[in-house]
Amino acid sequence: MDKKRPLILVTNDDGITAPGIRSLIEVMNEIGDVVVIAPDSPQSAMGHAITINSTLHCQKVNVDSGPQKEYSCSGTPADCIKLGINEILKKKPDLCVSGVNHGSNASINVIYSGTMSAAIEASIEGVPAIGFSLLDYSWKADFNHIKNYIKEITLKSLKNGIPNGTALNVNFPKLNEKEIKGIKVCNQAKAHWVEKFDKRTNPQGREYYWLTGEFINNDNSKESDEWALKNGYISIVPITYDLTNYSVLKNLQTWNF
Amino acid sequence: MDKKRPLILVTNDDGITAPGIRSLIEVMNEIGDVVVIAPDSPQSAMGHAITINSTLHCQKVNVDSGPQKEYSCSGTPADCIKLGINEILKKKPDLCVSGVNHGSNASINVIYSGTMSAAIEASIEGVPAIGFSLLDYSWKADFNHIKNYIKEITLKSLKNGIPNGTALNVNFPKLNEKEIKGIKVCNQAKAHWVEKFDKRTNPQGREYYWLTGEFINNDNSKESDEWALKNGYISIVPITYDLTNYSVLKNLQTWNF
Repeated sequence: MDKKRPLILVTNDDGITAPGIRSLIEVMNEIGDVVVIAPDSPQSAMGHAITINSTLHCQKVNVDSGPQKEYSCSGTPADCIKLGINEILKKKPDLCVSGVNHGSNASINVIYSGTMSAAIEASIEGVPAIGFSLLDYSWKADFNHIKNYIKEITLKSLKNGIPNGTALNVNFPKLNEKEIKGIKVCNQAKAHWVEKFDKRTNPQGREYYWLTGEFINNDNSKESDEWALKNGYISIVPITYDLTNYSVLKNLQTWNF
Repeated sequence: MDKKRPLILVTNDDGITAPGIRSLIEVMNEIGDVVVIAPDSPQSAMGHAITINSTLHCQKVNVDSGPQKEYSCSGTPADCIKLGINEILKKKPDLCVSGVNHGSNASINVIYSGTMSAAIEASIEGVPAIGFSLLDYSWKADFNHIKNYIKEITLKSLKNGIPNGTALNVNFPKLNEKEIKGIKVCNQAKAHWVEKFDKRTNPQGREYYWLTGEFINNDNSKESDEWALKNGYISIVPITYDLTNYSVLKNLQTWNF
């Protein structure tokens, strides 16, 4: 870490007024100079969506007190990062943090997550990035007891340097301070959702669906994030944007196209 | 491949009336029993977004003649797959194909792509999947000369079996039939976009932005999809939904949390 304070870009997917991002800003103010560029409304499950067919608005706001600068943006979390790095900020940030998400982004959830798409977008643009999530979906979730861990992980990341092209996916179990056993570096559990569609009829007689689902984890590996979280640990998974499945390349090359 | 005709689920991100999906349906009708479940409007750059905070509509439609069944859906490409596999189809499809996209989904574009998010979603749900894209953004792009390649790749995939948890990302160069040199199995090029924001003022005096950008590829590897496409080949990249960066796990484990 430089002796001067690092420039930290903060975003999330629950919207700029969410309690989770407020807690994250508090911690980051202790570490560096903070600029917040976050969605003006909830953007959960937006995956890596970006806004190309409509326009983006972005305005300076004061959500609460503190030294941070804040901007509210009409786009997705990935838009916020693009706009921040390429338009709003005068220099490249030293770190991007996203969250704290209200709910899990462990295992397959990473792929649907707006929180993590922001962190991944930053890593694509060459900015070290961390996404933080708490396994508590409540708007009133208690983030106080995880602040020390957020600070520790952020300081270690600045000191050691997150490897190039990598974003860290950090998930906290829904436990109180004394119950948390520590931090584990893991891989993404091979779990998935089985969807159920709740079919209804609107007052005009038209059918519609609500998406619901059940989370299924058949991955019992002790190296996985789901195992760590179930056993009282904070999970950290290093995430890449290179989606190539290298393990099957040779197999496919024998197909004789 | 079974002696009976495979059940093939077809979707895209340009919308159910796009010329690209019409060409794909034609080819698939020659191979199997086709059910189309595709967005009712363009959903480009939607990444892996899913619809959880609003409702989904899905209705049977007849876009053009042919034996296929068609459904138009208000959601994202990933929604179409979830709805298809878990609600509309009576049995699990043997294959899911997405596209043909009007424009490139090679290299980093895969991460923003609605076309590929549909294919990846199918692979998560255990259905072999292929996304097809043509490097021609025009609505009037000519898909005729690539139909034979689409058929060949699809038949080989059904015969050999796409490895579990893998979706194929197939991109066609913008070349005529004689110029295409063949098919190459590749990895994702390490390229990225450098964004520029076109800042404007609306008639009411409010500032807004259009996202634009320049594609930057510093990856000269002959194993990459960008190299293949630039040199006249069709590229096939096997894609995984496990985003773990395994190559840095050991490094992170030395951080002593």
